[in-house]
Amino acid sequence: MSARIRLGMVGGGQGAFIGAVHRMAARLDDRFELVAGALSSDPERAETSARALGLARSYSDFNDMALAEAAREDGIQAVAIVTPNHMHLAPAKAFLAAGIHVICDKPMTATLAQAEELTAIAQASDAKFILTHTYAGYPMVREARRIVASGALGKIRVVNVNYVQDWLATPAAGKQADWRVDPAKSGEGGAIADIGTHAAHLARYVSGLPIDTVAADLQSFVDGRAVDDNAHVMLRMGDARGMLWASQVTPGFVNEVSLRIGGEDAGLEWSHLRPEELRFTRLGEPSQILTRGGPFFEGNARVPGGHPEGYIEAFAQLYSDAADAITSGDMPADLPDVQDGLDGMRFVAACIASSRADGAWTAL
Amino acid sequence: MSARIRLGMVGGGQGAFIGAVHRMAARLDDRFELVAGALSSDPERAETSARALGLARSYSDFNDMALAEAAREDGIQAVAIVTPNHMHLAPAKAFLAAGIHVICDKPMTATLAQAEELTAIAQASDAKFILTHTYAGYPMVREARRIVASGALGKIRVVNVNYVQDWLATPAAGKQADWRVDPAKSGEGGAIADIGTHAAHLARYVSGLPIDTVAADLQSFVDGRAVDDNAHVMLRMGDARGMLWASQVTPGFVNEVSLRIGGEDAGLEWSHLRPEELRFTRLGEPSQILTRGGPFFEGNARVPGGHPEGYIEAFAQLYSDAADAITSGDMPADLPDVQDGLDGMRFVAACIASSRADGAWTAL
Amino acid sequence: MSARIRLGMVGGGQGAFIGAVHRMAARLDDRFELVAGALSSDPERAETSARALGLARSYSDFNDMALAEAAREDGIQAVAIVTPNHMHLAPAKAFLAAGIHVICDKPMTATLAQAEELTAIAQASDAKFILTHTYAGYPMVREARRIVASGALGKIRVVNVNYVQDWLATPAAGKQADWRVDPAKSGEGGAIADIGTHAAHLARYVSGLPIDTVAADLQSFVDGRAVDDNAHVMLRMGDARGMLWASQVTPGFVNEVSLRIGGEDAGLEWSHLRPEELRFTRLGEPSQILTRGGPFFEGNARVPGGHPEGYIEAFAQLYSDAADAITSGDMPADLPDVQDGLDGMRFVAACIASSRADGAWTAL
Amino acid sequence: MSARIRLGMVGGGQGAFIGAVHRMAARLDDRFELVAGALSSDPERAETSARALGLARSYSDFNDMALAEAAREDGIQAVAIVTPNHMHLAPAKAFLAAGIHVICDKPMTATLAQAEELTAIAQASDAKFILTHTYAGYPMVREARRIVASGALGKIRVVNVNYVQDWLATPAAGKQADWRVDPAKSGEGGAIADIGTHAAHLARYVSGLPIDTVAADLQSFVDGRAVDDNAHVMLRMGDARGMLWASQVTPGFVNEVSLRIGGEDAGLEWSHLRPEELRFTRLGEPSQILTRGGPFFEGNARVPGGHPEGYIEAFAQLYSDAADAITSGDMPADLPDVQDGLDGMRFVAACIASSRADGAWTAL
Repeated sequence: MSARIRLGMVGGGQGAFIGAVHRMAARLDDRFELVAGALSSDPERAETSARALGLARSYSDFNDMALAEAAREDGIQAVAIVTPNHMHLAPAKAFLAAGIHVICDKPMTATLAQAEELTAIAQASDAKFILTHTYAGYPMVREARRIVASGALGKIRVVNVNYVQDWLATPAAGKQADWRVDPAKSGEGGAIADIGTHAAHLARYVSGLPIDTVAADLQSFVDGRAVDDNAHVMLRMGDARGMLWASQVTPGFVNEVSLRIGGEDAGLEWSHLRPEELRFTRLGEPSQILTRGGPFFEGNARVPGGHPEGYIEAFAQLYSDAADAITSGDMPADLPDVQDGLDGMRFVAACIASSRADGAWTAL
Repeated sequence: MSARIRLGMVGGGQGAFIGAVHRMAARLDDRFELVAGALSSDPERAETSARALGLARSYSDFNDMALAEAAREDGIQAVAIVTPNHMHLAPAKAFLAAGIHVICDKPMTATLAQAEELTAIAQASDAKFILTHTYAGYPMVREARRIVASGALGKIRVVNVNYVQDWLATPAAGKQADWRVDPAKSGEGGAIADIGTHAAHLARYVSGLPIDTVAADLQSFVDGRAVDDNAHVMLRMGDARGMLWASQVTPGFVNEVSLRIGGEDAGLEWSHLRPEELRFTRLGEPSQILTRGGPFFEGNARVPGGHPEGYIEAFAQLYSDAADAITSGDMPADLPDVQDGLDGMRFVAACIASSRADGAWTAL
Repeated sequence: MSARIRLGMVGGGQGAFIGAVHRMAARLDDRFELVAGALSSDPERAETSARALGLARSYSDFNDMALAEAAREDGIQAVAIVTPNHMHLAPAKAFLAAGIHVICDKPMTATLAQAEELTAIAQASDAKFILTHTYAGYPMVREARRIVASGALGKIRVVNVNYVQDWLATPAAGKQADWRVDPAKSGEGGAIADIGTHAAHLARYVSGLPIDTVAADLQSFVDGRAVDDNAHVMLRMGDARGMLWASQVTPGFVNEVSLRIGGEDAGLEWSHLRPEELRFTRLGEPSQILTRGGPFFEGNARVPGGHPEGYIEAFAQLYSDAADAITSGDMPADLPDVQDGLDGMRFVAACIASSRADGAWTAL
Repeated sequence: MSARIRLGMVGGGQGAFIGAVHRMAARLDDRFELVAGALSSDPERAETSARALGLARSYSDFNDMALAEAAREDGIQAVAIVTPNHMHLAPAKAFLAAGIHVICDKPMTATLAQAEELTAIAQASDAKFILTHTYAGYPMVREARRIVASGALGKIRVVNVNYVQDWLATPAAGKQADWRVDPAKSGEGGAIADIGTHAAHLARYVSGLPIDTVAADLQSFVDGRAVDDNAHVMLRMGDARGMLWASQVTPGFVNEVSLRIGGEDAGLEWSHLRPEELRFTRLGEPSQILTRGGPFFEGNARVPGGHPEGYIEAFAQLYSDAADAITSGDMPADLPDVQDGLDGMRFVAACIASSRADGAWTAL
């Protein structure tokens, strides 16, 4: 075992959801040690949060943190950015400039212009940029990707992806909801950015196909909401055709992500409701239920098949991959990067443009 | 019990699939007796098929049949039309003109023009016109419709409907496939007509909303196929938004019909994979699994809950309703009629037009 | 097509559940025509019920019916006996004596002594005796039986079967419940006879193994109930071991029948909740979902795979097999007969004896 | 946040399964820090393993470790014992004697006599003894326990629990299997001890009822196997009746744990296949799908509902509870302790005795 990678965090103060997830994910496989943070822009809250986590060093400003940590021999090697979307670009720039690897929550930025700026910077930097598209960390999603890449599906024809929630079905309330429906913080996109980018990434990640053009119909169902809360999108992905549904207002669907891919020779289905399974069907043969740890499985497994892994483990996989990237200097092929982040923001921008143009097909 | 209604059949000779289904459906609840048929346009096959079924009277021409049966005191009271799509209009006209009730398979016709002609004729006729949109016969689909109509969902926001098959994933072979991919027999639409009309009807039937406009992307994936075999459609239904996916080329999906509806206050999910269940979720409450024959169920049940009913029973429900319609003179509200057939063909035509216009929103 | 077999019915007057099921099952595949009945021991109710069904001939006494029908040239060829358990033996004897085939509901009799008497009579008779163990009519149950018989599972080790309901969880009320909890009508067994015989038959039918000995723990949970309403049984089946749970008092389980069989080389799972599927797993390979009408399926299918068949269709399969038996003179191997009925009553008697002996292993 | 609890480990060297699980579980909620270990009885392997984990202190003998750590100011406060069953007692005694809290894998010991000895010692010690019955850490298992305790089920009648695997269906091979089928290491019980104790604990834990007597049929199906690999058990739990099936030889069941409980007023079903759900049915009402994080949920959640937690999280819950116990001095009511371990070994011994007595009811 290599020594643990020293990790910092921007955002993720007390009460934050995704910051706590990043910390559990970083801890699970024991490749990181959280030692510093700028956990809140409110100095007092930053300090209290840092103390509660037992952090060695607490900052109230991420710029100070980047400079100070870069100057220390025992400074952080990587930073997790877990602020709202509009606060991704600035810290990412600061840490990349300081030569510190960045693990950034999604969507990558609030706007496409920010994404383009960040992409240029990240590509010019020696530090790695990693984007936490969680679903890319699920073992059976990776297994699906491997199966598609092996050619077992033949030429892909159809991609259908859904990401459906209900927690924003009423005028939002609470810390998690507030910033997500405020364009100043979330960016122009609502559901299309918050979960639509996950769905779009999943479709691309498994199919191996780009999303070339979209025809989108975005809607804000809740009165007074300034961003979309439901998105219907038709996709063209090379010669394949697809559909994407992202909704945060459909009662009964807490967090249902599902993907179906049909090729000339075989088809695949994965659902977040049973993440440890993959239904794989060759034309003319019975459907097979492939499982993590089961026959033919080639991926990573912390515990044997039948002992369910879930969301935190998927997230932890991204952190383990990030540790590999940082240690080896090479980005693993399965790990989302800045290009995925740019693709995501192009998708958001194209969907918004298409929807404003009454659903006209719009290139990414 | 009233005496059984005397039934005739056009089409449905030996080897036909849907004709046999109509006969089982007509028999199940014992409201009909099949006594006459023009089972094939090939006189010999018509005769052989009629003998095999023990029919009292066999015809080789449906026009002759309509005239002869109308003239008999013991002539048929209703006729089932189970020919390929392009052969629906002519027999329907003949029997309606003879005052004989028509039970017609879907889609109603091969073209919208035919549908309009038939609608005018049917509306002017004293005879009933019934369209066998099978899914409207499933008890839990009707329960879903009742729940929506009760207002339990509040204002509907989102409708998502899929009908996915794989049996036409390769160049078609066999009697069932051949006519479905031949525009001369199926009409302009392929999957969009054959199963897309089912999906569209299901969406309208349960939601109670019209499909006003569509943006469609139709595709023929199989080389040389003259009709679409995959259809992606975005829907506008009043203030609601929807998506529809109809595919006959997605491996692993034998015949999966599913419907999800989200309203302001509650949501519903139904799947043909478990047709006896309905998932119903009021916002902020646990999902409930409503079942046929279970608590609060108000529909029809031949056997107690837990003893699964399926496709034939759903089809039989339409025949029982038809028997009610014929006996009472009043169309039951839950029974698809000529207007549903016209709506279906308008949907097909609009989808084709939209797809040709590169997905432009097209009114029905 | 052969002419329809003329069928009579004993029991099944208005309000009866299982009589109506037998009639639908007999009708579905169009092999029978119901022409006569002694539908109730109450002459007036018998007559009213017969008229409602449009029967040609109604009797108030099954002995009269057996004699009269046997004497007619157009008399019934087979009779369905759908009375409560204690009223199976007498009519079965009467019709067998008259040379009329008997299709009898389960359990075969109220007591083992009656079962032994009936078995001797049936075996000596030229008329067929058919027992409607419904689950033996499900296509995927038969597929499971075929797979086991093919040797694909290797030597069988474990058989686990459940039949769980909740409708008798409270002191019974209503026509269906009343006779089932009255030992004078149901016989000594309650749940163990009413549904336990189904479960035991299913275990034997698919595994191909006899139930040799049982260790049983029967219970009457509802106050004042004179028969068991929950049964736990350990089974020895040749070298295999099994468990059987039959319950009519477990809330949330409407009518859940499930079977799991493990052999040296492969395992099978079937559940009545998804009757069209069979999970089949060879050791070291992914589970396969086998389906009616799907790849490798060798059974009977009225409608294509993906169009669900259910309980009535399974029941109808027994009637179609009965029609084959009557027409050909040979009992199909898949059709439950008098020996199955005797096995069932031996199972009930052994379970009751074992339970009274505090669970001592008791041979059948 | 309190400082992390200093943790040691006995067993769990390289290649061990459950040791790695304990470490992930201890890490996830950041309440422990692993600082010392006697990871193997082979000194070299102990040292290599400790170095790979970055442990501060490595021992080759657990007695030395207990003494040395107790003597240090910064010595471990708790120890995880993750050796094979026969090596639980001795280290547990050593650490309890040293005043160090013990977190012990299950089953508690190899024999009942050992369990009784350990119970006496643990009850006399000020140090805590915690047993890692993992399933007691699943949020929806705890929710089930809470619901039963609330009286919502009324008086419990039936408890049905299964734990079914297939990984020992052939003569065992590999490190994990070898010791489990060696009575010198596993103890007298095979499947009944390894997974039967989990199932028995789950039944008791949720129902709140003791297992008073058992009637068991144990079997060793694999040739030459010295311990049972399949166990069928009937249970008497107060006035309730139950069944338990533990199998390690049933193909197709990787690690399926399921529990069904029926009371007078309501029933519950939980399955490890979908651990985040609980089916709850009040008699006469629709089944409800209760979920972690969903309406009415009162338990602990690291991530929102719909983001699946699994096995590691359940295990981590036991560690978090252990941290609470250690910090506060009070054992949380939901945390398995030495009495649970003793109950488990009494269950194993009673099952073996019953099976040897041909299934005679045997008190625990």
